[in-house]
Amino acid sequence: MQKGQDMNKDQYQVERWDIFELTLEGPSSGNPFIDVTISAQFSHQDRVVAVNGFYDGDGNYKIRFMPDVPGVWNYVTKSNVPELDGIEGQFTCVAAPEGVHGPVTVYNTHHFAYADGTPYYPFGTTCYAWTHQGDAMEEQTLETLQKASFNKIRMCVFPKDYPFNKNEPVYYPFERDESGESDFTRFNPAFFDHFEQRLAQLAELGIEADIIIWHPYDRWGYATMDEESDFRYLRYLIARLSAFHHVWWSLANEYDFMDKPMERWDRFFQILVQGDPYQHLRSIHNGNPEDMYDHTKPGVTHVCIQHSNIRQVVEWRQAYGKPIVNDELEYEGNITYPWGGISAEEEVHRFWVMVVNGGYAGHGETYMHPDDILWWSKGGVLHGKSWQRIGFLREIIEAAPQGGLSPQRGSEGHLFENGTMFGGYLWQRFSGGRNGETQLVYLENYQPKFLPIWLPEGDYQIEMINPWEMTISPAKVKKLSEAPSYSYDFPGTIDPTHEIELPGKPRMALRIRPSKS
Amino acid sequence: MQKGQDMNKDQYQVERWDIFELTLEGPSSGNPFIDVTISAQFSHQDRVVAVNGFYDGDGNYKIRFMPDVPGVWNYVTKSNVPELDGIEGQFTCVAAPEGVHGPVTVYNTHHFAYADGTPYYPFGTTCYAWTHQGDAMEEQTLETLQKASFNKIRMCVFPKDYPFNKNEPVYYPFERDESGESDFTRFNPAFFDHFEQRLAQLAELGIEADIIIWHPYDRWGYATMDEESDFRYLRYLIARLSAFHHVWWSLANEYDFMDKPMERWDRFFQILVQGDPYQHLRSIHNGNPEDMYDHTKPGVTHVCIQHSNIRQVVEWRQAYGKPIVNDELEYEGNITYPWGGISAEEEVHRFWVMVVNGGYAGHGETYMHPDDILWWSKGGVLHGKSWQRIGFLREIIEAAPQGGLSPQRGSEGHLFENGTMFGGYLWQRFSGGRNGETQLVYLENYQPKFLPIWLPEGDYQIEMINPWEMTISPAKVKKLSEAPSYSYDFPGTIDPTHEIELPGKPRMALRIRPSKS
Repeated sequence: MQKGQDMNKDQYQVERWDIFELTLEGPSSGNPFIDVTISAQFSHQDRVVAVNGFYDGDGNYKIRFMPDVPGVWNYVTKSNVPELDGIEGQFTCVAAPEGVHGPVTVYNTHHFAYADGTPYYPFGTTCYAWTHQGDAMEEQTLETLQKASFNKIRMCVFPKDYPFNKNEPVYYPFERDESGESDFTRFNPAFFDHFEQRLAQLAELGIEADIIIWHPYDRWGYATMDEESDFRYLRYLIARLSAFHHVWWSLANEYDFMDKPMERWDRFFQILVQGDPYQHLRSIHNGNPEDMYDHTKPGVTHVCIQHSNIRQVVEWRQAYGKPIVNDELEYEGNITYPWGGISAEEEVHRFWVMVVNGGYAGHGETYMHPDDILWWSKGGVLHGKSWQRIGFLREIIEAAPQGGLSPQRGSEGHLFENGTMFGGYLWQRFSGGRNGETQLVYLENYQPKFLPIWLPEGDYQIEMINPWEMTISPAKVKKLSEAPSYSYDFPGTIDPTHEIELPGKPRMALRIRPSKS
Repeated sequence: MQKGQDMNKDQYQVERWDIFELTLEGPSSGNPFIDVTISAQFSHQDRVVAVNGFYDGDGNYKIRFMPDVPGVWNYVTKSNVPELDGIEGQFTCVAAPEGVHGPVTVYNTHHFAYADGTPYYPFGTTCYAWTHQGDAMEEQTLETLQKASFNKIRMCVFPKDYPFNKNEPVYYPFERDESGESDFTRFNPAFFDHFEQRLAQLAELGIEADIIIWHPYDRWGYATMDEESDFRYLRYLIARLSAFHHVWWSLANEYDFMDKPMERWDRFFQILVQGDPYQHLRSIHNGNPEDMYDHTKPGVTHVCIQHSNIRQVVEWRQAYGKPIVNDELEYEGNITYPWGGISAEEEVHRFWVMVVNGGYAGHGETYMHPDDILWWSKGGVLHGKSWQRIGFLREIIEAAPQGGLSPQRGSEGHLFENGTMFGGYLWQRFSGGRNGETQLVYLENYQPKFLPIWLPEGDYQIEMINPWEMTISPAKVKKLSEAPSYSYDFPGTIDPTHEIELPGKPRMALRIRPSKS
């Protein structure tokens, strides 16, 4: 973030997708959070972007802006307070440094890319309340994130009250009186300063912040604010956070476990659509599998799902026509609750099914801990074994050409061409994804010794992947001159062209792509 | 089987549920299979049972009868041939030898029992064409069955034409001309003699014969006989086989892959209902999961299913109100087809889910073999690792009191009483079954370190079961005075009474029952 102290100098520069911040002094009497409106128009050539500012306490008013195009930007403020109104200035937006690609957007219907076109495949984790654990653990969490290869994190603005989460937060988002009662009309700038510091550190690590705005697990009253307070809070977040290029908006964790009427959730989406100048990604997360929000609604950019029936990803893709992110396919851990009790092997298995079928998944870790430090909520260190394997899967996905995987199931075949005896049938059980000429097959719980496939003319590199051992090795492949004797001999089908010999173990994968010439 | 040579002697004795067989000489000219009708009425006190006989070649006519009540039985024959008509006789039915309990029937809606009330829990395997492999392999199959602890076998009358099944059978069920064309009006008694010999050997091993009457995998024309031939064949089977106490009728393997109209399948059930004097169990097996026969029809005694979505067992129980036997939840093996490609671990897992939720499952084994000898069809020896574990599960089920398991899911709780924070919720993921005060829990892919449960006042024996290692050991149990800190503290819920400490590994099970005083 570039602080705006020198903003009147001509040479003042902001990197593309970084934050230009303008700080102005104004009234501190009354309730500036309510009484004062402040905004600015940023213009570049014939383009004008309107941005709301916010009160940051101590008579300070701030306007943040993320320039998305290099060049000279001019601005002029607008306020109901004369001293904040009509202030003009300019800055120059320069190229982004290497590694900064701008906000993530939807790409190719079911996938994502950064603003500069670089592919982005979410491999996220979950640390709901990590910014509420105090500096020592928060720094530890950041160190862990640096070692792991997650590129998204689900995190709540509000602190959490839940089993394993009984500690008070260091900062509170609203002013509180001595009895602990919050004044929802007065935000606590120290809270947000801290939160934004952590946000900025995530950006440095290349991790998208999937910010959860509401959640039901609360003892401070944040979950049950009235409509007016909810709207004010959301607008304040937009004003403070939307200039961070790596922000995603997740309206809620488990919205269906909260008491807000559906119209309010719909309205939240509308406020984001109208108020976020950068149109950051927007979604909402269900609790019950049966109570999914209607993700076909236009304000929803991608589908967040909590669902353990992972093979439904193909149907979800078809139903929604948006990227599918199953952020809770259950977590690796050993707590009593099934949502946090699957093995590392099962977590990795579910990731592969989600991803190979053209969706995305989210990680979490919930191992019992003597001090109740569970990664899924507090952060700290990782104890499990799935996170490395998820990183391995990420490498495989990122090595494919841009475009993202489309599921073989429900589509025309290729590897197992429809028309062979191994056509669509096998996709009823195996997972297969295709990205151009690159095909990825995950054999799930099946352990075939031989896999006959059909490939168009050409030379192919066929590799066997062991998702758990994290190895990739050349597969044993034989060219076939006729269908193997163990296959059905239905008349009218075409013969497979190759046979792959496999180790006869479950949960193996194959990558097949044209040989580099 | 007691041959009927001495049937006119007063002291002629037949054991209860064994076969009384009357052989009569009659015409051998023309086509006795079609031309001659023969039947008998067997009477005991005021009870009369009508039984059809059959032509067995060489001028021999046979009538078989299975007496189900000890005492004196009289009979009189009826025929359109004078020399076979009006023949009278009697025999005495004596007590069954130890270990013989009579035919299996439906018991307690979703379960089975033998005629004498002894519980019967099916733990079956599949050897479709084992009686067509020649004596050496057939004897080997019987030896294997003696070592394994299966108590049911799915087996076809007809030979099989399919991948791995290209050998000709030793016997053909119908007379054939030199070109191999069958005469469906003339049965081959040698075929049936052989088949019945194998049936009798199964009875000696205590194995129920789930006889598959039709199937689609055929190159001899048996799958596509006309209606008249189908009906004649079915009636001939009834006359020959129904006196075997351990016969179950399975109309088809994968009926939906055959060309017969639905009315014909319905009619087959009616013929069995009307023609089988002993009302042996009747069902029919689907191919596609979507094409299940309507098992609510009254002729169907129990539900045969081919389905890999095993947790649906609870819904199937509710939908049909009959015993559920998932005979193809996919087989342990390594062939290309997913139906025969799951690991032993997965096979055992699926058995546990089916059985703990109050259903039953069927085993099969399909490992590639240099001579195409796959257990699932030909028999021979077992190569896998699931069969021993299935035997272990059978022991556990048979150790419970009579009555069979009812699923916890969808019913009032007990172990996790509804009303605790661990109520119905956990059953959405775990499998639990209850038989009176005995409760069995299978934790599926979850690996909780602690499991808080609710038990009524009393002393309990709580054991941890490792289904794969086949061990049963006392569980570490702590009495709770309050809900553990890691549980949700929803108001209005009651507290669990005990906490079980577990090893934090997936696929573990628990058995909880009152201590023996």
